[in-house]
Amino acid sequence: MSGLSPRRPLAVTMGDPAGVGPEVAAHAWALRREHDLPPFVAIGDAAAIESQWEGPVRRVSDMDGVAEIFHDALPVLHLEESGPLTLGQPTPAGATCALHALETGIGLTRTQATSALVTGPVSKHALHGIGYTHPGQTEFIAERCGVTATNAVMMLAAPGLRVVPLTVHIPLAAVPEQLTAEIIVAKARIVARGLRRDFGIASPRLAIAGLNPHAGENGQLGSEEAEIMAPAIAQIAAEGIIIDGPLAADSLFAPDVRKHYDALLCGYHDQALAPFKALHFHDGVNLTLGLPIIRTSPDHGTAFNIAGSGRADPGPTIAAIQLAGKLATNREHSVAPAK
Amino acid sequence: MSGLSPRRPLAVTMGDPAGVGPEVAAHAWALRREHDLPPFVAIGDAAAIESQWEGPVRRVSDMDGVAEIFHDALPVLHLEESGPLTLGQPTPAGATCALHALETGIGLTRTQATSALVTGPVSKHALHGIGYTHPGQTEFIAERCGVTATNAVMMLAAPGLRVVPLTVHIPLAAVPEQLTAEIIVAKARIVARGLRRDFGIASPRLAIAGLNPHAGENGQLGSEEAEIMAPAIAQIAAEGIIIDGPLAADSLFAPDVRKHYDALLCGYHDQALAPFKALHFHDGVNLTLGLPIIRTSPDHGTAFNIAGSGRADPGPTIAAIQLAGKLATNREHSVAPAK
Repeated sequence: MSGLSPRRPLAVTMGDPAGVGPEVAAHAWALRREHDLPPFVAIGDAAAIESQWEGPVRRVSDMDGVAEIFHDALPVLHLEESGPLTLGQPTPAGATCALHALETGIGLTRTQATSALVTGPVSKHALHGIGYTHPGQTEFIAERCGVTATNAVMMLAAPGLRVVPLTVHIPLAAVPEQLTAEIIVAKARIVARGLRRDFGIASPRLAIAGLNPHAGENGQLGSEEAEIMAPAIAQIAAEGIIIDGPLAADSLFAPDVRKHYDALLCGYHDQALAPFKALHFHDGVNLTLGLPIIRTSPDHGTAFNIAGSGRADPGPTIAAIQLAGKLATNREHSVAPAK
Repeated sequence: MSGLSPRRPLAVTMGDPAGVGPEVAAHAWALRREHDLPPFVAIGDAAAIESQWEGPVRRVSDMDGVAEIFHDALPVLHLEESGPLTLGQPTPAGATCALHALETGIGLTRTQATSALVTGPVSKHALHGIGYTHPGQTEFIAERCGVTATNAVMMLAAPGLRVVPLTVHIPLAAVPEQLTAEIIVAKARIVARGLRRDFGIASPRLAIAGLNPHAGENGQLGSEEAEIMAPAIAQIAAEGIIIDGPLAADSLFAPDVRKHYDALLCGYHDQALAPFKALHFHDGVNLTLGLPIIRTSPDHGTAFNIAGSGRADPGPTIAAIQLAGKLATNREHSVAPAK
């Protein structure tokens, strides 16, 4: 693993045991050498792996032995039996196990027993069925880390492209009102800090897309660029952060434009994610900036419809593990000020 | 040119003479054999080409000789001297020439002296300075063809991907109100008809993106999918048009999803154009469906900043000419009912 491995193993939660989470974690381990993966421990119900995968599994209880075991077997931190498993059919017991895995992964990483957290796919529907009230895993992680949801910033990262939706899971009609100058400034700061500290980019270059088509075309197609975004950009620049914009979103994603930036800030979910996934559907990683821990995630769901069929692509999980390892290593070696 | 050439030459307007329009038209002609281009005539101020390009130019007044001349020289329908030309600096005389070229190209194509219209880039600002009141060239063409602006449907086309923004140049905040079921149905009909008649696709498959993130996630992130889009989709399907959706925009643009459709209908400008240009910045063609004529356009502007530098890429104009030739040929051979 050369110098790119973090000091401690990574925590990889398996998510819902009836989904593809356990199998992609196992398949990622099987490909550890090809992809030069740092040691990791899979967290959840060991039986969910053992029942569908013939590779070597070793149950562990202490993180100290993980790196050694990782050479020969998939280390699993077994939490509980989640009951009779029918792949593709989530159960309350399975959702409970997924939640416990998430809580355990957060705790291990907060206490630095593990270097980073990689979260497997959960079923929001099944979690809501057991009383979970958070919209997704990110909000839960933020709360457990003492960070407000606004300050936990979603980024999608792939080779050569990073995007940040400044608003996320809200109706399109709510975007113009919720995209405030305060949100833009706060998230740009977190993105710039994350790029410096975790990605090791000394002077990150940001660009921000206009909210309206053609970035408002000098006010003819909307006023938010002048009234909301320009003052926010001025504030961000005044803090010494390099930022261009607002730029027309369709020009911003052109290859000759996007290559000049370390992150593209977008006003809303689809403005960021539709072009990102058009380009990087199979190698994009979802990560959360602004947390006291490193957290990444494969950018797909439980895929209940193909769970157990062997068709689930471990590529996104491998990419999420690789990136988590890289970010954790960078943060360990970071000389950037913590502010 | 085999059987793919239309019966009559194409009309290629040069747009603003101070922009890159004249040079990319000339460079497209120079590459006519490599790209197997159908014969075309460039329309505008011949001096704008002659002053910056050393290749052979032949002024023509009759479309009948264009195909023969095209072998050895660029046929130009010279309209008027647009005055002393400084590349990169638009003038009222230049804007007037661009407008005359557009009018002439429409007239020639409407009367079938030319088979299709390819419009070069104009300066909206310069046109507005001479009293032009249309938002763009498309609205002017529609009006001259007796088609309402709503029924002139913008499509971006590239190999393997076609997108249609159902609303276009309006502020984002106006989208939820203006994206009505009537608009969706009307434009889907025009798209399906255009794919049949002009693209030669017997049973076109359409998909429509949800307006909200995750296509509204069962109403949790917006109600337009259920209230506006679902009834429109039902109406379209009842008319025998294949259409899927509403689908989450970021999933829709994934390679394994988009490949199943002949056109992706999107709710607004950036939802369609940001992913399209991320994938096809250099080979995308802008075309207008719903007109009595074939009309395509390279998807870039006057590029005043590089006019005359030789750096303008003729690729988009070449792609626009190729597509116009293909569509015109298909329409000439179309056996689809005209309804």
